Amino acid sequence: RVDAYPTRHADRETITDRADPVLWTAWSEDAPLAREQAEHYEQKGYLVLRDLFTPDEVRGLMDVSRRLRTTDPAERPADFVSEPASDEVRTIFRLDEHSETFARLAADARLARVAEFLLGDRVYLHQSRLNYKPGFKGKEFYWHSDFETWHAEDGVPRMRAVSASILLTDNTSVNGPLMLVPGSHRRFIGCRGATPEDNHKTSLKAQVVGVPQPETIAKLVKEHGLDTATGPAGTVVFFECNTLHGSNGNITPFPRSNAFFVYNALTNRPSAPFAAKTPRPEWLANRDTITPLEARRGAITGEGAA
Amino acid sequence: RVDAYPTRHADRETITDRADPVLWTAWSEDAPLAREQAEHYEQKGYLVLRDLFTPDEVRGLMDVSRRLRTTDPAERPADFVSEPASDEVRTIFRLDEHSETFARLAADARLARVAEFLLGDRVYLHQSRLNYKPGFKGKEFYWHSDFETWHAEDGVPRMRAVSASILLTDNTSVNGPLMLVPGSHRRFIGCRGATPEDNHKTSLKAQVVGVPQPETIAKLVKEHGLDTATGPAGTVVFFECNTLHGSNGNITPFPRSNAFFVYNALTNRPSAPFAAKTPRPEWLANRDTITPLEARRGAITGEGAA
Repeated sequence: RVDAYPTRHADRETITDRADPVLWTAWSEDAPLAREQAEHYEQKGYLVLRDLFTPDEVRGLMDVSRRLRTTDPAERPADFVSEPASDEVRTIFRLDEHSETFARLAADARLARVAEFLLGDRVYLHQSRLNYKPGFKGKEFYWHSDFETWHAEDGVPRMRAVSASILLTDNTSVNGPLMLVPGSHRRFIGCRGATPEDNHKTSLKAQVVGVPQPETIAKLVKEHGLDTATGPAGTVVFFECNTLHGSNGNITPFPRSNAFFVYNALTNRPSAPFAAKTPRPEWLANRDTITPLEARRGAITGEGAA
Repeated sequence: RVDAYPTRHADRETITDRADPVLWTAWSEDAPLAREQAEHYEQKGYLVLRDLFTPDEVRGLMDVSRRLRTTDPAERPADFVSEPASDEVRTIFRLDEHSETFARLAADARLARVAEFLLGDRVYLHQSRLNYKPGFKGKEFYWHSDFETWHAEDGVPRMRAVSASILLTDNTSVNGPLMLVPGSHRRFIGCRGATPEDNHKTSLKAQVVGVPQPETIAKLVKEHGLDTATGPAGTVVFFECNTLHGSNGNITPFPRSNAFFVYNALTNRPSAPFAAKTPRPEWLANRDTITPLEARRGAITGEGAA
């Protein structure tokens, strides 16, 4: 089996060029993005879109998100991950199974059609989650490429996936917004350090394996700069699976919450992990149940709404 | 003895109005600040000044700061405080004793005359320090009012002190800049929780006692907003001793370093602590050796410079 992106080396870090296209469809008039938008995504590895959803739709999504994260700690399933030092919900995986509204959102044409265009294929959800960073004590997410983990631990073969982050609170410069290294998606950092067993049990709280060395991050930032994705609730950030990103902690009173959908190309389904003994559980990475999305049009209504 | 600001209550938090002026001198034509600047400080509790120093002066200060923080860990005096989880220097106290250049900076008319004006008195250094927040793993400083600690643990009687923060690296929105709650200096938050013995041994790494309750911080931010003090190296931020402030952690490659001088009015010298058994050590709070500053004019030259 070809491994285009070797990683989790025992003794060294490797930096190689990306072996896949970024934009898997040539732009044309009927693309769901403007030409400049497609070019921005190709060059920077991400794209911020505002006003995709109506204020009513955004309010509905925020209501559902609020209900989900206030689930009683005793009744939380395994895919509810809490903050390292408290009971507060940090991430809810399988978001599309916990909420019809969010399942509908994931399939919404305003997102799914863009994903299909970027990836040049039909798409399905590799992962879906709700990130919730509380105010006052929200911890940082250290720099990482999502693809590195999905390749090493889930067996996703190629860079043919894209994440959509839908902001459910205002994200400003002070409450730990997503930071991205533009252009970093064109290099693959094969990380130092073997994958421990059941790595996901700790890596979701604080990632230690599969992160680039500080000097490498510094070098990439020096070359490419560092961008911040801020915007009001409802803003959508598409970012390429290999774009290096992270976020600072948050002592402000303003929580930060985002829904994440990872769209993977149907032809890019996971095989065996490339650098781990066993694959991560299904709630982290769909493997057995793969359902291509049927893009849906029309307004998204909240649960319990008319 | 009158205690104008009771704090460290066993069982509750109190919020009372400030019992002291903010601006201790009426503005006039010969003040070292413009009228709008003095008004800004009075209303918001802080003031950002750019271009006070020449590029040469700033470079000299940065050089000295770099030398200080690379002192061998084995040779560091007790007033060098390291990061909770590493050997890296986080704060150097008694900065004016460790460096002639910084002693000269503290007395520079561009700072000291402003402090004298704001406090309406001759001034001396209650504390001086160099804060250094490394890149990648800089930890947050949680919300606090400096005066609360100085009053409780050092015995500073009244709100008649001002800090000057001199930025020694660029402070941008992403590398954990100083955040301030404008207007918070007009209220005093008497904090919940008695002072543990030797509190400073842990509070300098992560403050637990003497911090407001989250709901109180949220309330003040809702009323007054939240400001961020950013600027290129060389920028100076004056902030009133009771202004609520804090800063987020920093995973970016960009370190953050500032020199801090706390100017106290000569008539506001510490007495016995108001809410602690014994005063903090001299390197944290001058008590026995109080030397009024003589404002000095002219360029600041780095150590070893001509």
